[in-house]
Amino acid sequence: MQNQALTYARDHREQYLNDLCEYIAIPSISAMPEHAADVRRAGEWLRDHFIALGLQSWLIESPIGGNAAVYAEWKHPQPDKPTVLIYGHYDVQPADPLDLWQSPPFSASVRDGYIYARGADDNKGQHMSHVKAIESYLKASGSLPCNVKFIVEGEEEVGGETLPLLIESHQDLLACDVVMVSDGGLLALDQPSLEYGLRGLVYFEVEARAANRDMHSGIYGGNVQNPAMALAQILAQLKDNTGRILVDGFYEDVRVMDADERAELARVPLTEATILSETGALKTFGEPEFTVVERMGARPTLEINGLWSGYTGAGQKTVLPAIANAKISCRLVPNQDPAKIFAQVRDHMQRLAGPEIKLSFKTMGDGAFATLIDRNSPQLRAAARAAEATYGNRPVYSLSGGSIPVVNEFKRILNQPVVLLGFGLNNDNIHAPNERYALACYEKGTEASIRFLAELVA
Amino acid sequence: MQNQALTYARDHREQYLNDLCEYIAIPSISAMPEHAADVRRAGEWLRDHFIALGLQSWLIESPIGGNAAVYAEWKHPQPDKPTVLIYGHYDVQPADPLDLWQSPPFSASVRDGYIYARGADDNKGQHMSHVKAIESYLKASGSLPCNVKFIVEGEEEVGGETLPLLIESHQDLLACDVVMVSDGGLLALDQPSLEYGLRGLVYFEVEARAANRDMHSGIYGGNVQNPAMALAQILAQLKDNTGRILVDGFYEDVRVMDADERAELARVPLTEATILSETGALKTFGEPEFTVVERMGARPTLEINGLWSGYTGAGQKTVLPAIANAKISCRLVPNQDPAKIFAQVRDHMQRLAGPEIKLSFKTMGDGAFATLIDRNSPQLRAAARAAEATYGNRPVYSLSGGSIPVVNEFKRILNQPVVLLGFGLNNDNIHAPNERYALACYEKGTEASIRFLAELVA
Repeated sequence: MQNQALTYARDHREQYLNDLCEYIAIPSISAMPEHAADVRRAGEWLRDHFIALGLQSWLIESPIGGNAAVYAEWKHPQPDKPTVLIYGHYDVQPADPLDLWQSPPFSASVRDGYIYARGADDNKGQHMSHVKAIESYLKASGSLPCNVKFIVEGEEEVGGETLPLLIESHQDLLACDVVMVSDGGLLALDQPSLEYGLRGLVYFEVEARAANRDMHSGIYGGNVQNPAMALAQILAQLKDNTGRILVDGFYEDVRVMDADERAELARVPLTEATILSETGALKTFGEPEFTVVERMGARPTLEINGLWSGYTGAGQKTVLPAIANAKISCRLVPNQDPAKIFAQVRDHMQRLAGPEIKLSFKTMGDGAFATLIDRNSPQLRAAARAAEATYGNRPVYSLSGGSIPVVNEFKRILNQPVVLLGFGLNNDNIHAPNERYALACYEKGTEASIRFLAELVA
Repeated sequence: MQNQALTYARDHREQYLNDLCEYIAIPSISAMPEHAADVRRAGEWLRDHFIALGLQSWLIESPIGGNAAVYAEWKHPQPDKPTVLIYGHYDVQPADPLDLWQSPPFSASVRDGYIYARGADDNKGQHMSHVKAIESYLKASGSLPCNVKFIVEGEEEVGGETLPLLIESHQDLLACDVVMVSDGGLLALDQPSLEYGLRGLVYFEVEARAANRDMHSGIYGGNVQNPAMALAQILAQLKDNTGRILVDGFYEDVRVMDADERAELARVPLTEATILSETGALKTFGEPEFTVVERMGARPTLEINGLWSGYTGAGQKTVLPAIANAKISCRLVPNQDPAKIFAQVRDHMQRLAGPEIKLSFKTMGDGAFATLIDRNSPQLRAAARAAEATYGNRPVYSLSGGSIPVVNEFKRILNQPVVLLGFGLNNDNIHAPNERYALACYEKGTEASIRFLAELVA
């Protein structure tokens, strides 16, 4: 059945490309209210496409006035087979600055082996590979190797709040054995990657207050504490000069990697040179006993994301500010509790503050635990076999340094492993002008999806 | 002659008040282009007033398109007598917020012993006391005890660049033995104050750069130095937790006060309690071996005036910033060289910066040396006698924590002592709604000026 599907997919490349181009042409920019009708139209287009393929599909409306999600499932459940829930998003980023595009962002231009368009990779191209895998099976053999469900949301690019509510309220509908998320990338066309962990996050703001009004530095300078200096001195003591975080207890729950995991991570082709060339940093900086790959995915961070005090305009103003503020976030690794970490950092900072300074703290958002998926689970093994067969090499297992909130929600609410197998390339310019998706990525993504469904029951 | 002048002044209180009210009614707001004609009109009014009193007076036009200064001198030079140059400014601050004024800002309202109007104290009222002192002498006895010149500028409230140029280009015209500046205040109606020093200033901006673009804290956090943290750590090391500045060599040129001067400064009625009530600070903070008065006027400072990095808007953005910035200024005391201090702070910060950070510095303005006037010079002694006779108490000698650039310019270019004897009160709401000037301040200011001119030749 798998081979028939693969053959069918190869034979229908052109049609599959045309379908994707039609889908991409809908400017479903969720951030721009003037495109609300286009966003809706993209969801309806996908729903109708599912129906045309023989799936049951409908829009699940947002209970909070957001964008609907497209749900689809094959009409013929096979109770003895596992169920995969495939996730994607049909909304896209805005296209501006428009003048940097070499072809219009919403009329897919195919050249040099790439489809150039907003959404080509992120995420229409990637989830269409899965759609086309289903089409290939159904058209070639009238059946699927396992049960398949789709949930494709329309608010990913605006950090929408609809999907978590829908997952919570549709747990029976979305019940599955594994969630497949294709929202990442290949390391190269012949090197797949499986992300088995995401860092969590806690984010807060601190205000350091020294007085109840801004002061004249000539009159009060030398007699009143400067909150910007006090805050600098407190912040300075949160990290040592190797990058190690000095907050009491900060590392106590951090998961220790075994030698096997560190050996796997050593395969990730991220080097100091990569980081330097991508960022223009003068030098890398971080805990010396860990590799850059480990620091990115397996070690927690504490970063100042924003800092402000006093006068920040042009020229000089000799103000002695009343307050200074910082935004601080910690990326968390498995077992670290965002609420506990926040309390530890807050208490540590309070201990460092002198009697001249009043610190106030405000957390932003709920925080998120890190996510870790067992590399040896049957679902990840199935994905690894499918990827190796498709791309020619065993996947690299990596830990993402970032957070994908929806992955946490799937894991938390549905309580099943999430496979993060991306089909795009890192240089696809997502969120930037001239976004693109290689035709080869689209086709191999479809093949990888075909193989994954078969491997799940192998 | 002095007594006749004093008597004349007392007998013509009402006329002197009317003249001031007429002058105040001209809304000479230098910061507002729509008041340019009013600014000009105020200068012309003052010129005509001088001429009516029998002085020679004319406008000195700005060579750079700014506001003219009013110059005046008595027509009958007495070559054997000293010459006093009296400084003032005829421009005023804007009056907004207008709705907080209890009477219109530009029609002087006299009530409860005060003239309420913008410019009543700062500075029309104060320099009119000197004008009326001259009028009293000339009307009462047709002569002056010494030579008198006036220079009254029209750009003080906008930090104008005209006056320094005029002083530089009119050194012969402005040649004098002492400059009298009335732009400060009495401590109370019976307690005059003589400021004998002003702090200098050096102001600069520093940029700490770690990368050539803002980064995603999930991807690069833990592997690249955060410039906000690096800058915090550098700034933190510029001061210890008692407020002492740790920059190498920072204090090496600081003038050491003798016991006599410290005893005089101990008379200044500034206490920790005053500072706490004026600022709402939780606690005072500064070098423990100095009093609050000494810290304000006789000790240099290093203050962060502005600090900014990364995302400072509402909510959360997990950015790892590329750069962090600070504005820093040092108030300087006599003998400290602004250029040398800047170089010391810059070099100290450069030594503290790790190899991951590139610091760039930019000075703002030219910096200013502190000004110190010999308390025992004949001119200050004359002012002290005049003040004691007028207000009933020996003046308190104080050091200003701030800087008055024009005082530096007078001292530097004309190379003569500057007497800072203010006639207003600290609660006169200058630069704020309901600015006022006590009638008693106006009258006693006139008497103090009459006595000062006599004491200069005593």
